Amino acid sequence: MVHFEKSGGLVPAIAQDADTGQVLMLAWMNKEAYEETLRTRQACYYSRSRSKLWRKGEESGNVQEVREVYLDCDADTILLKVHQIGGAACHEGYASCFFRKVEGDKLRVIGERLFDPKQVYKK
Amino acid sequence: MVHFEKSGGLVPAIAQDADTGQVLMLAWMNKEAYEETLRTRQACYYSRSRSKLWRKGEESGNVQEVREVYLDCDADTILLKVHQIGGAACHEGYASCFFRKVEGDKLRVIGERLFDPKQVYKK
Repeated sequence: MVHFEKSGGLVPAIAQDADTGQVLMLAWMNKEAYEETLRTRQACYYSRSRSKLWRKGEESGNVQEVREVYLDCDADTILLKVHQIGGAACHEGYASCFFRKVEGDKLRVIGERLFDPKQVYKK
Repeated sequence: MVHFEKSGGLVPAIAQDADTGQVLMLAWMNKEAYEETLRTRQACYYSRSRSKLWRKGEESGNVQEVREVYLDCDADTILLKVHQIGGAACHEGYASCFFRKVEGDKLRVIGERLFDPKQVYKK
């Protein structure tokens, strides 16, 4: 159903807050991650840096409950409408990973930190 | 500012309706497309299938006026908040490219066609 083969096995998946419409993040899915997401209704991505499945929230507890799944016209991008447990999708503690706005040559941080990453990811 | 080099020169760019929050489409940008988008405030992507810059709406007239630009935490995904001229971002005539909802093993078309592609793209 999804054309994973077109782009080397991975397609982008957008997570959008089901209630507010805020775009939370973009990650990647292979076929296995997509199928697990549909089966468990919790977002499972594929981590390109770690080269393995990434069950969002497995470390922080901030899982994404998947309410609805959409495919785009080319069937090579996935859109998830989710409920983000803990309120913050971003590992830096913001509700959305898109917390920096481009203004001229600068980036301005918008939004507030909901948690301190150092407290959540004890490394 | 954007890490184009991390992913072979192209990063995903999400277009979201600035007023309604609807996710309209995902396309790709190289550095040149990104810089043109910032300069002109009209969305310019890079077409992977045609291997060249794709000035969204150059054929249909349905350009995307860019209101705001955001980068994600890894600076390898772009989020545009846009005003979509003509109301339809999708070449199939829908407001959003994500007009198909995954329901079990099926795809269900949601949303209404705003234009007939045959009339707009006269080929």
